[in-house]
Amino acid sequence: MLNKLVVIGVGLIGGSFALDLRRAGLVREVIGVGRSRENLERALQLGVVDAISQDAAEAVRGADMVLLATPVGQMGPVLASIAASLPRAALVSDGGSTKRDVAALYRQYLGDSLDRCVPAHPIAGSDLSGAAAARYSLFEQRKVVLCPLPETSPEASERVAALWRSCGAEVLALSPEQHDAVFAAVSHLPHLLAFAYMNAVLARDDAETCLSLAASGFRDFTRIAGSHPEMWRDIAMANRDGLLRDLQAYRAQLDDTIALLEAQDAEGLAERFDRASAARVAWSKARS
Amino acid sequence: MLNKLVVIGVGLIGGSFALDLRRAGLVREVIGVGRSRENLERALQLGVVDAISQDAAEAVRGADMVLLATPVGQMGPVLASIAASLPRAALVSDGGSTKRDVAALYRQYLGDSLDRCVPAHPIAGSDLSGAAAARYSLFEQRKVVLCPLPETSPEASERVAALWRSCGAEVLALSPEQHDAVFAAVSHLPHLLAFAYMNAVLARDDAETCLSLAASGFRDFTRIAGSHPEMWRDIAMANRDGLLRDLQAYRAQLDDTIALLEAQDAEGLAERFDRASAARVAWSKARS
Repeated sequence: MLNKLVVIGVGLIGGSFALDLRRAGLVREVIGVGRSRENLERALQLGVVDAISQDAAEAVRGADMVLLATPVGQMGPVLASIAASLPRAALVSDGGSTKRDVAALYRQYLGDSLDRCVPAHPIAGSDLSGAAAARYSLFEQRKVVLCPLPETSPEASERVAALWRSCGAEVLALSPEQHDAVFAAVSHLPHLLAFAYMNAVLARDDAETCLSLAASGFRDFTRIAGSHPEMWRDIAMANRDGLLRDLQAYRAQLDDTIALLEAQDAEGLAERFDRASAARVAWSKARS
Repeated sequence: MLNKLVVIGVGLIGGSFALDLRRAGLVREVIGVGRSRENLERALQLGVVDAISQDAAEAVRGADMVLLATPVGQMGPVLASIAASLPRAALVSDGGSTKRDVAALYRQYLGDSLDRCVPAHPIAGSDLSGAAAARYSLFEQRKVVLCPLPETSPEASERVAALWRSCGAEVLALSPEQHDAVFAAVSHLPHLLAFAYMNAVLARDDAETCLSLAASGFRDFTRIAGSHPEMWRDIAMANRDGLLRDLQAYRAQLDDTIALLEAQDAEGLAERFDRASAARVAWSKARS
Protein backbone atom coordinates (compact mmCIF):
# COMPACT_ATOMS: atom_id res chain seq x y z
CA MET A 1 0.00 0.00 0.00
CA LEU A 2 1.34 3.42 -0.98
CA ASN A 3 0.38 6.37 1.18
CA LYS A 4 1.31 9.04 -1.30
CA LEU A 5 1.97 8.53 -5.00
CA VAL A 6 3.19 11.53 -6.96
CA VAL A 7 2.60 11.30 -10.73
CA ILE A 8 4.60 13.87 -12.64
CA GLY A 9 2.96 14.22 -16.06
CA VAL A 10 -0.69 13.23 -15.81
CA GLY A 11 -1.43 11.82 -19.26
CA LEU A 12 -2.24 8.46 -20.80
CA ILE A 13 0.39 6.50 -18.85
CA GLY A 14 0.61 8.36 -15.54
CA GLY A 15 -3.13 8.90 -15.31
CA SER A 16 -4.05 5.31 -16.16
CA PHE A 17 -1.50 3.96 -13.63
CA ALA A 18 -3.07 6.17 -10.92
CA LEU A 19 -6.61 5.06 -11.81
CA ASP A 20 -5.77 1.35 -11.63
CA LEU A 21 -3.79 1.59 -8.37
CA ARG A 22 -6.54 3.56 -6.66
CA ARG A 23 -9.21 1.12 -7.85
CA ALA A 24 -7.08 -1.77 -6.54
CA GLY A 25 -6.85 -0.04 -3.14
CA LEU A 26 -3.07 0.15 -3.45
CA VAL A 27 -2.69 3.88 -2.97
CA ARG A 28 -4.23 6.31 -0.47
CA GLU A 29 -3.53 9.62 -2.21
CA VAL A 30 -2.37 10.53 -5.72
CA ILE A 31 -0.84 13.95 -6.38
CA GLY A 32 -0.71 15.04 -10.02
CA VAL A 33 2.11 17.37 -11.06
CA GLY A 34 2.55 18.99 -14.45
CA ARG A 35 3.31 22.06 -16.51
CA SER A 36 -0.21 22.65 -17.79
CA ARG A 37 -2.66 23.97 -15.19
CA GLU A 38 -5.53 23.18 -17.58
CA ASN A 39 -4.51 19.52 -17.90
CA LEU A 40 -4.07 19.17 -14.12
CA GLU A 41 -7.51 20.63 -13.51
CA ARG A 42 -9.02 18.22 -16.00
CA ALA A 43 -7.24 15.34 -14.20
CA LEU A 44 -8.75 16.51 -10.91
CA GLN A 45 -12.25 16.86 -12.41
CA LEU A 46 -12.03 13.40 -13.97
CA GLY A 47 -10.99 11.89 -10.65
CA VAL A 48 -7.65 10.71 -12.03
CA VAL A 49 -5.77 12.39 -9.16
CA ASP A 50 -6.75 13.55 -5.68
CA ALA A 51 -4.76 16.79 -5.61
CA ILE A 52 -2.63 18.77 -8.03
CA SER A 53 0.51 20.85 -7.87
CA GLN A 54 2.76 22.73 -10.24
CA ASP A 55 5.65 22.58 -7.79
CA ALA A 56 7.30 19.18 -8.18
CA ALA A 57 9.90 19.78 -5.44
CA GLU A 58 7.18 20.55 -2.93
CA ALA A 59 4.84 17.80 -4.11
CA VAL A 60 7.31 14.94 -3.63
CA ARG A 61 7.78 15.66 0.11
CA GLY A 62 6.44 12.70 2.05
CA ALA A 63 5.89 10.62 -1.11
CA ASP A 64 6.57 6.91 -0.99
CA MET A 65 6.57 6.67 -4.78
CA VAL A 66 7.21 9.11 -7.61
CA LEU A 67 6.31 8.15 -11.19
CA LEU A 68 7.84 10.27 -13.92
CA ALA A 69 5.38 10.13 -16.80
CA THR A 70 6.40 13.21 -18.77
CA PRO A 71 7.99 13.11 -22.23
CA VAL A 72 11.55 11.84 -21.79
CA GLY A 73 13.00 15.26 -22.65
CA GLN A 74 11.50 16.78 -19.49
CA MET A 75 12.76 14.12 -17.12
CA GLY A 76 16.19 15.74 -16.57
CA PRO A 77 14.79 19.08 -15.35
CA VAL A 78 12.15 17.24 -13.29
CA LEU A 79 14.74 15.05 -11.57
CA ALA A 80 16.94 18.10 -10.96
CA SER A 81 14.05 19.88 -9.30
CA ILE A 82 12.99 17.01 -7.01
CA ALA A 83 16.41 15.60 -6.05
CA ALA A 84 16.79 17.69 -2.88
CA SER A 85 13.30 17.15 -1.45
CA LEU A 86 12.75 13.51 -2.46
CA PRO A 87 12.38 11.29 0.64
CA ARG A 88 15.24 8.84 1.00
CA ALA A 89 12.84 5.88 1.07
CA ALA A 90 10.72 6.84 -1.95
CA LEU A 91 10.56 4.53 -4.93
CA VAL A 92 11.22 6.35 -8.20
CA SER A 93 10.08 4.93 -11.51
CA ASP A 94 9.07 6.27 -14.90
CA GLY A 95 7.17 5.45 -18.06
CA GLY A 96 9.73 6.69 -20.56
CA SER A 97 9.92 5.08 -24.00
CA THR A 98 13.73 5.07 -23.99
CA LYS A 99 15.81 3.66 -21.19
CA ARG A 100 19.54 4.27 -21.62
CA ASP A 101 19.04 8.03 -21.35
CA VAL A 102 16.64 7.76 -18.42
CA ALA A 103 19.05 5.42 -16.61
CA ALA A 104 21.78 8.04 -17.12
CA LEU A 105 19.50 10.76 -15.70
CA TYR A 106 18.83 8.75 -12.54
CA ARG A 107 22.55 8.33 -12.17
CA GLN A 108 23.15 12.05 -12.74
CA TYR A 109 20.51 13.44 -10.38
CA LEU A 110 19.71 10.71 -7.85
CA GLY A 111 23.17 9.19 -7.42
CA ASP A 112 22.56 8.59 -3.68
CA SER A 113 19.22 6.83 -4.17
CA LEU A 114 19.87 4.53 -7.10
CA ASP A 115 18.80 1.53 -5.02
CA ARG A 116 15.26 3.00 -5.15
CA CYS A 117 15.26 3.85 -8.89
CA VAL A 118 13.47 1.45 -11.24
CA PRO A 119 13.52 2.59 -14.89
CA ALA A 120 10.44 1.14 -16.61
CA HIS A 121 8.53 1.18 -19.87
CA PRO A 122 4.86 0.19 -19.96
CA ILE A 123 4.09 -0.84 -23.56
CA ALA A 124 0.81 0.94 -23.95
CA GLY A 125 1.42 3.69 -26.44
CA SER A 126 -1.36 5.57 -28.11
CA ASP A 127 -1.85 8.54 -30.37
CA LEU A 128 -3.89 10.01 -27.48
CA SER A 129 -2.34 12.20 -24.83
CA GLY A 130 -3.32 14.36 -21.84
CA ALA A 131 -5.31 13.59 -18.71
CA ALA A 132 -8.47 12.91 -20.73
CA ALA A 133 -6.69 9.91 -22.32
CA ALA A 134 -6.25 8.18 -18.93
CA ARG A 135 -8.45 5.13 -18.46
CA TYR A 136 -8.92 2.06 -16.32
CA SER A 137 -7.35 -1.23 -17.43
CA LEU A 138 -5.11 0.36 -20.05
CA PHE A 139 -2.33 -2.03 -19.00
CA GLU A 140 -4.46 -5.19 -18.92
CA GLN A 141 -2.51 -7.90 -20.81
CA ARG A 142 0.11 -5.35 -21.84
CA LYS A 143 3.81 -5.81 -21.19
CA VAL A 144 5.87 -3.63 -18.88
CA VAL A 145 9.65 -3.76 -19.33
CA LEU A 146 11.72 -2.99 -16.23
CA CYS A 147 15.34 -1.98 -16.78
CA PRO A 148 16.81 -2.05 -13.26
CA LEU A 149 20.21 -0.43 -12.71
CA PRO A 150 23.04 -2.48 -11.20
CA GLU A 151 22.40 -0.45 -8.02
CA THR A 152 18.62 -0.97 -7.96
CA SER A 153 17.64 -3.13 -4.99
CA PRO A 154 15.77 -6.31 -5.88
CA GLU A 155 13.15 -5.28 -3.34
CA ALA A 156 12.50 -1.96 -5.16
CA SER A 157 12.25 -3.76 -8.52
CA GLU A 158 9.84 -6.27 -7.05
CA ARG A 159 7.64 -3.60 -5.48
CA VAL A 160 7.37 -1.73 -8.80
CA ALA A 161 6.77 -5.01 -10.67
CA ALA A 162 3.98 -5.93 -8.24
CA LEU A 163 2.25 -2.58 -8.80
CA TRP A 164 2.30 -3.09 -12.56
CA ARG A 165 1.04 -6.65 -12.17
CA SER A 166 -1.85 -5.32 -10.13
CA CYS A 167 -2.75 -3.27 -13.23
CA GLY A 168 -2.97 -6.53 -15.19
CA ALA A 169 0.38 -6.14 -16.93
CA GLU A 170 2.98 -8.81 -17.64
CA VAL A 171 6.34 -7.63 -16.30
CA LEU A 172 9.69 -8.57 -17.81
CA ALA A 173 13.25 -7.28 -17.51
CA LEU A 174 15.78 -6.18 -20.13
CA SER A 175 18.96 -4.16 -19.89
CA PRO A 176 18.52 -0.53 -20.99
CA GLU A 177 20.65 -1.33 -24.06
CA GLN A 178 18.54 -4.33 -25.11
CA HIS A 179 15.40 -2.32 -24.47
CA ASP A 180 16.46 0.59 -26.64
CA ALA A 181 17.57 -1.65 -29.53
CA VAL A 182 14.27 -3.54 -29.55
CA PHE A 183 12.09 -0.43 -29.31
CA ALA A 184 14.08 1.41 -31.95
CA ALA A 185 13.05 -1.44 -34.26
CA VAL A 186 9.42 -2.07 -33.33
CA SER A 187 8.27 1.35 -32.22
CA HIS A 188 10.58 4.29 -32.84
CA LEU A 189 11.47 3.43 -36.44
CA PRO A 190 7.84 2.88 -37.56
CA HIS A 191 6.88 6.24 -36.04
CA LEU A 192 9.62 8.02 -38.01
CA LEU A 193 8.64 6.12 -41.18
CA ALA A 194 4.99 7.08 -40.71
CA PHE A 195 5.81 10.75 -40.13
CA ALA A 196 8.01 10.74 -43.26
CA TYR A 197 5.24 9.08 -45.25
CA MET A 198 2.63 11.67 -44.22
CA ASN A 199 5.04 14.43 -45.22
CA ALA A 200 5.63 12.77 -48.60
CA VAL A 201 1.87 12.76 -49.23
CA LEU A 202 1.49 16.38 -48.07
CA ALA A 203 4.23 17.49 -50.48
CA ARG A 204 2.23 16.29 -53.52
CA ASP A 205 0.30 18.61 -55.84
CA ASP A 206 -2.68 16.27 -55.60
CA ALA A 207 -2.42 15.88 -51.80
CA GLU A 208 -6.07 16.81 -51.23
CA THR A 209 -7.41 14.27 -53.73
CA CYS A 210 -5.08 11.70 -52.22
CA LEU A 211 -6.31 12.32 -48.68
CA SER A 212 -9.95 12.25 -49.81
CA LEU A 213 -9.50 8.79 -51.38
CA ALA A 214 -7.27 7.30 -48.69
CA ALA A 215 -8.92 4.29 -47.06
CA SER A 216 -8.38 1.73 -44.33
CA GLY A 217 -4.83 0.71 -45.35
CA PHE A 218 -3.74 4.35 -45.17
CA ARG A 219 -5.68 4.85 -41.93
CA ASP A 220 -3.87 2.04 -40.10
CA PHE A 221 -0.46 2.65 -41.64
CA THR A 222 -0.53 6.32 -40.62
CA ARG A 223 -2.27 6.07 -37.23
CA ILE A 224 1.04 6.50 -35.40
CA ALA A 225 1.83 9.60 -37.51
CA GLY A 226 -0.85 11.34 -35.42
CA SER A 227 1.32 10.88 -32.31
CA HIS A 228 2.60 13.61 -30.00
CA PRO A 229 5.37 15.48 -31.94
CA GLU A 230 7.30 16.67 -28.87
CA MET A 231 7.32 13.21 -27.30
CA TRP A 232 8.62 11.68 -30.53
CA ARG A 233 11.26 14.37 -30.99
CA ASP A 234 12.56 13.47 -27.53
CA ILE A 235 12.47 9.73 -28.24
CA ALA A 236 14.24 10.19 -31.57
CA MET A 237 16.99 12.24 -29.95
CA ALA A 238 17.30 9.90 -26.96
CA ASN A 239 17.59 6.77 -29.11
CA ARG A 240 19.46 8.50 -31.90
CA ASP A 241 22.25 6.00 -32.58
CA GLY A 242 19.96 2.97 -32.56
CA LEU A 243 17.49 4.75 -34.79
CA LEU A 244 20.15 5.85 -37.26
CA ARG A 245 21.33 2.26 -37.54
CA ASP A 246 17.77 1.08 -38.14
CA LEU A 247 16.98 3.87 -40.58
CA GLN A 248 20.00 2.85 -42.66
CA ALA A 249 18.93 -0.81 -42.56
CA TYR A 250 15.44 0.21 -43.62
CA ARG A 251 16.84 2.34 -46.41
CA ALA A 252 18.71 -0.71 -47.68
CA GLN A 253 15.42 -2.65 -47.82
CA LEU A 254 13.84 0.28 -49.65
CA ASP A 255 16.71 0.42 -52.12
CA ASP A 256 16.28 -3.31 -52.70
CA THR A 257 12.59 -2.74 -53.49
CA ILE A 258 13.45 0.14 -55.84
CA ALA A 259 16.12 -1.94 -57.62
CA LEU A 260 13.76 -4.90 -58.11
CA LEU A 261 11.03 -2.64 -59.45
CA GLU A 262 13.47 -0.86 -61.78
CA ALA A 263 14.64 -4.25 -63.07
CA GLN A 264 11.01 -5.37 -63.47
CA ASP A 265 11.90 -8.37 -61.30
CA ALA A 266 8.35 -9.47 -60.45
CA GLU A 267 9.47 -12.72 -58.85
CA GLY A 268 12.04 -10.96 -56.68
CA LEU A 269 9.32 -8.61 -55.45
CA ALA A 270 6.89 -11.49 -54.86
CA GLU A 271 9.53 -13.32 -52.84
CA ARG A 272 10.07 -10.25 -50.57
CA PHE A 273 6.31 -9.64 -50.21
CA ASP A 274 5.69 -13.29 -49.47
CA ARG A 275 8.30 -13.41 -46.69
CA ALA A 276 6.93 -10.24 -45.09
CA SER A 277 3.31 -11.34 -45.43
CA ALA A 278 3.92 -14.83 -44.00
CA ALA A 279 5.72 -13.34 -40.98
CA ARG A 280 3.01 -10.74 -40.36
CA VAL A 281 0.24 -13.34 -40.61
CA ALA A 282 2.14 -15.62 -38.20
CA TRP A 283 2.70 -12.73 -35.75
CA SER A 284 -0.99 -11.94 -35.77
CA LYS A 285 -1.99 -15.58 -35.24
CA ALA A 286 0.45 -15.99 -32.35
CA ARG A 287 -1.21 -13.11 -30.52
CA SER A 288 -4.86 -14.02 -31.05
CA MET B 1 -32.11 -6.26 -62.88
CA LEU B 2 -29.35 -8.56 -64.12
CA ASN B 3 -30.35 -12.02 -65.24
CA LYS B 4 -26.89 -13.50 -65.13
CA LEU B 5 -23.86 -12.00 -63.38
CA VAL B 6 -20.53 -13.78 -63.89
CA VAL B 7 -17.94 -13.03 -61.21
CA ILE B 8 -14.46 -14.12 -62.22
CA GLY B 9 -12.39 -14.37 -59.07
CA VAL B 10 -14.68 -15.00 -56.10
CA GLY B 11 -12.86 -13.30 -53.24
CA LEU B 12 -13.35 -10.32 -50.99
CA ILE B 13 -14.43 -7.91 -53.76
CA GLY B 14 -16.21 -10.17 -56.23
CA GLY B 15 -17.93 -12.21 -53.54
CA SER B 16 -19.11 -9.19 -51.55
CA PHE B 17 -20.45 -7.50 -54.71
CA ALA B 18 -22.44 -10.67 -55.52
CA LEU B 19 -23.84 -10.90 -51.97
CA ASP B 20 -25.07 -7.31 -51.94
CA LEU B 21 -26.62 -7.41 -55.41
CA ARG B 22 -28.49 -10.60 -54.65
CA ARG B 23 -29.75 -9.25 -51.33
CA ALA B 24 -30.94 -6.10 -53.14
CA GLY B 25 -32.82 -8.28 -55.65
CA LEU B 26 -30.76 -6.85 -58.50
CA VAL B 27 -29.48 -10.16 -59.89
CA ARG B 28 -31.21 -13.43 -60.63
CA GLU B 29 -28.20 -15.75 -60.92
CA VAL B 30 -24.53 -15.39 -59.99
CA ILE B 31 -21.93 -17.68 -61.57
CA GLY B 32 -18.57 -17.85 -59.82
CA VAL B 33 -15.51 -18.57 -61.94
CA GLY B 34 -11.97 -19.14 -60.70
CA ARG B 35 -8.78 -21.14 -60.77
CA SER B 36 -9.19 -22.80 -57.41
CA ARG B 37 -11.87 -25.49 -57.24
CA GLU B 38 -11.62 -25.42 -53.45
CA ASN B 39 -12.32 -21.70 -53.27
CA LEU B 40 -15.24 -22.00 -55.70
CA GLU B 41 -16.77 -24.80 -53.68
CA ARG B 42 -16.46 -22.74 -50.54
CA ALA B 43 -18.19 -19.84 -52.34
CA LEU B 44 -21.03 -22.16 -53.28
CA GLN B 45 -21.33 -23.56 -49.74
CA LEU B 46 -21.36 -20.07 -48.27
CA GLY B 47 -24.11 -18.99 -50.68
CA VAL B 48 -21.92 -16.32 -52.25
CA VAL B 49 -22.66 -17.67 -55.75
CA ASP B 50 -25.44 -19.84 -57.25
CA ALA B 51 -23.27 -21.93 -59.56
CA ILE B 52 -19.57 -22.36 -60.26
CA SER B 53 -17.41 -23.00 -63.29
CA GLN B 54 -13.74 -23.28 -64.10
CA ASP B 55 -14.37 -22.50 -67.76
CA ALA B 56 -14.64 -18.72 -68.09
CA ALA B 57 -15.35 -18.81 -71.86
CA GLU B 58 -18.32 -21.11 -71.32
CA ALA B 59 -19.55 -19.33 -68.21
CA VAL B 60 -19.90 -15.90 -69.82
CA ARG B 61 -22.34 -17.12 -72.50
CA GLY B 62 -25.67 -15.42 -71.90
CA ALA B 63 -24.26 -13.13 -69.19
CA ASP B 64 -25.50 -9.57 -68.98
CA MET B 65 -22.62 -8.56 -66.75
CA VAL B 66 -19.10 -9.89 -66.17
CA LEU B 67 -17.08 -8.64 -63.18
CA LEU B 68 -13.35 -9.34 -63.28
CA ALA B 69 -12.29 -9.60 -59.65
CA THR B 70 -9.02 -11.53 -59.99
CA PRO B 71 -5.60 -10.09 -59.21
CA VAL B 72 -4.76 -7.62 -62.00
CA GLY B 73 -2.06 -9.90 -63.40
CA GLN B 74 -4.66 -12.53 -64.37
CA MET B 75 -6.98 -10.16 -66.16
CA GLY B 76 -5.18 -10.36 -69.53
CA PRO B 77 -5.49 -14.14 -69.85
CA VAL B 78 -9.08 -14.00 -68.55
CA LEU B 79 -10.09 -11.36 -71.11
CA ALA B 80 -8.34 -13.33 -73.87
CA SER B 81 -10.32 -16.42 -72.93
CA ILE B 82 -13.75 -14.76 -72.78
CA ALA B 83 -13.46 -12.34 -75.74
CA ALA B 84 -14.97 -14.70 -78.31
CA SER B 85 -17.94 -15.91 -76.25
CA LEU B 86 -18.83 -12.67 -74.46
CA PRO B 87 -22.33 -11.52 -75.47
CA ARG B 88 -22.24 -8.25 -77.40
CA ALA B 89 -24.60 -6.59 -74.90
CA ALA B 90 -22.83 -7.67 -71.70
CA LEU B 91 -21.46 -5.03 -69.36
CA VAL B 92 -17.84 -5.70 -68.39
CA SER B 93 -16.33 -4.19 -65.28
CA ASP B 94 -13.58 -5.07 -62.81
CA GLY B 95 -12.30 -4.43 -59.32
CA GLY B 96 -8.63 -3.98 -60.17
CA SER B 97 -6.48 -1.78 -57.97
CA THR B 98 -4.69 -0.25 -60.99
CA LYS B 99 -6.49 1.25 -63.93
CA ARG B 100 -4.14 2.27 -66.76
CA ASP B 101 -3.11 -1.32 -67.33
CA VAL B 102 -6.66 -2.65 -67.09
CA ALA B 103 -7.89 0.01 -69.52
CA ALA B 104 -5.18 -1.14 -71.96
CA LEU B 105 -6.28 -4.77 -71.56
CA TYR B 106 -9.89 -3.91 -72.39
CA ARG B 107 -8.59 -2.11 -75.46
CA GLN B 108 -6.41 -5.08 -76.41
CA TYR B 109 -8.96 -7.86 -76.00
CA LEU B 110 -12.40 -6.27 -76.22
CA GLY B 111 -11.75 -3.64 -78.88
CA ASP B 112 -15.20 -4.15 -80.42
CA SER B 113 -17.07 -3.80 -77.10
CA LEU B 114 -15.38 -0.87 -75.45
CA ASP B 115 -18.71 0.95 -75.16
CA ARG B 116 -19.67 -1.74 -72.61
CA CYS B 117 -16.39 -1.73 -70.64
CA VAL B 118 -16.32 0.21 -67.36
CA PRO B 119 -12.96 -0.02 -65.54
CA ALA B 120 -13.62 0.40 -61.81
CA HIS B 121 -11.92 0.28 -58.44
CA PRO B 122 -13.96 -0.26 -55.29
CA ILE B 123 -11.89 1.10 -52.39
CA ALA B 124 -12.41 -1.72 -49.94
CA GLY B 125 -9.06 -3.37 -49.57
CA SER B 126 -8.30 -5.82 -46.84
CA ASP B 127 -5.59 -8.18 -45.79
CA LEU B 128 -8.23 -10.92 -46.17
CA SER B 129 -8.74 -12.82 -49.39
CA GLY B 130 -10.68 -15.77 -50.80
CA ALA B 131 -14.40 -16.55 -50.88
CA ALA B 132 -14.55 -16.77 -47.08
CA ALA B 133 -13.65 -13.07 -46.92
CA ALA B 134 -16.81 -12.06 -48.83
CA ARG B 135 -19.41 -10.30 -46.71
CA TYR B 136 -22.54 -8.19 -46.90
CA SER B 137 -22.23 -4.40 -46.80
CA LEU B 138 -18.47 -4.38 -47.41
CA PHE B 139 -18.95 -1.35 -49.67
CA GLU B 140 -21.26 0.61 -47.36
CA GLN B 141 -19.94 4.20 -47.25
CA ARG B 142 -16.88 3.17 -49.26
CA LYS B 143 -15.85 4.92 -52.44
CA VAL B 144 -15.84 3.31 -55.88
CA VAL B 145 -13.78 5.03 -58.56
CA LEU B 146 -14.95 4.52 -62.16
CA CYS B 147 -12.42 5.18 -64.91
CA PRO B 148 -14.54 5.09 -68.08
CA LEU B 149 -12.73 4.89 -71.40
CA PRO B 150 -13.40 7.53 -74.06
CA GLU B 151 -15.43 4.80 -75.83
CA THR B 152 -17.44 3.74 -72.77
CA SER B 153 -21.11 4.64 -73.26
CA PRO B 154 -22.54 6.95 -70.58
CA GLU B 155 -25.37 4.44 -70.20
CA ALA B 156 -22.94 1.59 -69.37
CA SER B 157 -21.09 3.80 -66.84
CA GLU B 158 -24.37 4.79 -65.24
CA ARG B 159 -25.60 1.19 -64.97
CA VAL B 160 -22.38 0.10 -63.26
CA ALA B 161 -22.47 3.18 -61.01
CA ALA B 162 -26.06 2.37 -60.01
CA LEU B 163 -25.10 -1.19 -59.04
CA TRP B 164 -22.30 0.07 -56.80
CA ARG B 165 -24.61 2.69 -55.28
CA SER B 166 -27.05 -0.10 -54.45
CA CYS B 167 -24.20 -1.64 -52.40
CA GLY B 168 -24.04 1.59 -50.38
CA ALA B 169 -20.96 2.97 -52.13
CA GLU B 170 -20.24 6.53 -53.19
CA VAL B 171 -19.24 6.54 -56.86
CA LEU B 172 -16.85 9.04 -58.43
CA ALA B 173 -14.90 9.22 -61.70
CA LEU B 174 -11.21 9.80 -62.40
CA SER B 175 -9.10 9.22 -65.49
CA PRO B 176 -7.01 6.03 -65.30
CA GLU B 177 -3.90 8.24 -65.02
CA GLN B 178 -5.24 10.30 -62.11
CA HIS B 179 -6.44 7.12 -60.44
CA ASP B 180 -3.08 5.40 -60.65
CA ALA B 181 -1.16 8.44 -59.38
CA VAL B 182 -3.45 8.83 -56.37
CA PHE B 183 -3.43 5.14 -55.46
CA ALA B 184 0.32 4.82 -55.88
CA ALA B 185 0.53 7.45 -53.15
CA VAL B 186 -2.18 6.38 -50.69
CA SER B 187 -2.23 2.62 -51.15
CA HIS B 188 0.52 1.04 -53.24
CA LEU B 189 3.44 2.93 -51.69
CA PRO B 190 2.39 2.21 -48.07
CA HIS B 191 2.08 -1.49 -48.90
CA LEU B 192 5.62 -1.57 -50.29
CA LEU B 193 6.89 0.40 -47.29
CA ALA B 194 5.19 -2.00 -44.88
CA PHE B 195 6.58 -5.08 -46.65
CA ALA B 196 10.07 -3.53 -46.58
CA TYR B 197 9.69 -2.72 -42.88
CA MET B 198 8.67 -6.29 -41.98
CA ASN B 199 11.69 -7.59 -43.89
CA ALA B 200 13.97 -5.15 -42.04
CA VAL B 201 12.69 -6.49 -38.71
CA LEU B 202 13.03 -10.12 -39.85
CA ALA B 203 16.66 -9.51 -40.85
CA ARG B 204 17.64 -8.58 -37.27
CA ASP B 205 19.49 -10.92 -34.91
CA ASP B 206 16.96 -10.06 -32.19
CA ALA B 207 13.94 -10.42 -34.50
CA GLU B 208 12.14 -12.80 -32.16
CA THR B 209 12.47 -10.54 -29.11
CA CYS B 210 11.37 -7.64 -31.28
CA LEU B 211 8.25 -9.44 -32.48
CA SER B 212 7.39 -10.59 -28.95
CA LEU B 213 7.48 -6.99 -27.67
CA ALA B 214 5.80 -5.35 -30.66
CA ALA B 215 2.56 -3.67 -29.65
CA SER B 216 -0.35 -1.74 -31.13
CA GLY B 217 1.72 0.78 -33.11
CA PHE B 218 3.51 -2.07 -34.85
CA ARG B 219 0.24 -3.96 -35.30
CA ASP B 220 -1.46 -1.13 -37.17
CA PHE B 221 1.61 0.01 -39.11
CA THR B 222 2.22 -3.52 -40.42
CA ARG B 223 -1.37 -4.70 -40.95
CA ILE B 224 -1.08 -4.18 -44.71
CA ALA B 225 2.17 -6.18 -44.77
CA GLY B 226 -0.06 -9.24 -44.23
CA SER B 227 -1.66 -8.63 -47.65
CA HIS B 228 -1.78 -11.04 -50.57
CA PRO B 229 1.78 -11.21 -52.03
CA GLU B 230 0.73 -12.14 -55.58
CA MET B 231 -1.84 -9.38 -55.78
CA TRP B 232 0.69 -6.83 -54.60
CA ARG B 233 3.36 -8.08 -56.97
CA ASP B 234 0.88 -7.49 -59.81
CA ILE B 235 -0.09 -4.04 -58.53
CA ALA B 236 3.57 -3.05 -58.11
CA MET B 237 4.39 -4.14 -61.65
CA ALA B 238 1.26 -2.54 -63.11
CA ASN B 239 1.85 0.83 -61.44
CA ARG B 240 5.62 0.61 -61.66
CA ASP B 241 6.49 4.09 -62.95
CA GLY B 242 4.18 5.88 -60.50
CA LEU B 243 5.49 3.77 -57.66
CA LEU B 244 9.12 4.37 -58.56
CA ARG B 245 8.46 8.12 -58.57
CA ASP B 246 6.79 7.89 -55.16
CA LEU B 247 9.46 5.58 -53.73
CA GLN B 248 12.12 8.14 -54.71
CA ALA B 249 10.08 10.96 -53.15
CA TYR B 250 9.69 8.89 -50.00
CA ARG B 251 13.38 8.14 -49.93
CA ALA B 252 14.06 11.88 -50.04
CA GLN B 253 11.84 12.32 -46.95
CA LEU B 254 13.70 9.48 -45.27
CA ASP B 255 17.07 11.02 -46.13
CA ASP B 256 15.84 14.31 -44.67
CA THR B 257 14.96 12.49 -41.43
CA ILE B 258 18.36 10.77 -41.36
CA ALA B 259 20.19 14.06 -42.00
CA LEU B 260 18.30 15.88 -39.22
CA LEU B 261 18.96 13.06 -36.79
CA GLU B 262 22.65 12.94 -37.73
CA ALA B 263 22.88 16.71 -37.22
CA GLN B 264 21.04 16.34 -33.87
CA ASP B 265 18.57 18.92 -35.18
CA ALA B 266 15.80 18.31 -32.65
CA GLU B 267 13.76 21.33 -33.75
CA GLY B 268 13.95 20.31 -37.42
CA LEU B 269 12.62 16.87 -36.48
CA ALA B 270 9.89 18.35 -34.29
CA GLU B 271 8.82 20.61 -37.15
CA ARG B 272 8.48 17.59 -39.53
CA PHE B 273 6.70 15.47 -36.90
CA ASP B 274 4.36 18.34 -36.06
CA ARG B 275 3.36 18.89 -39.69
CA ALA B 276 2.71 15.17 -40.21
CA SER B 277 0.83 14.80 -36.94
CA ALA B 278 -1.39 17.85 -37.51
CA ALA B 279 -2.33 16.59 -40.99
CA ARG B 280 -3.07 13.06 -39.75
CA VAL B 281 -5.21 14.35 -36.88
CA ALA B 282 -7.12 16.64 -39.28
CA TRP B 283 -7.65 13.74 -41.73
CA SER B 284 -9.05 11.59 -38.98
CA LYS B 285 -11.39 14.33 -37.73
CA ALA B 286 -12.69 15.03 -41.23
CA ARG B 287 -13.77 11.40 -41.57
CA SER B 288 -15.40 10.90 -38.19
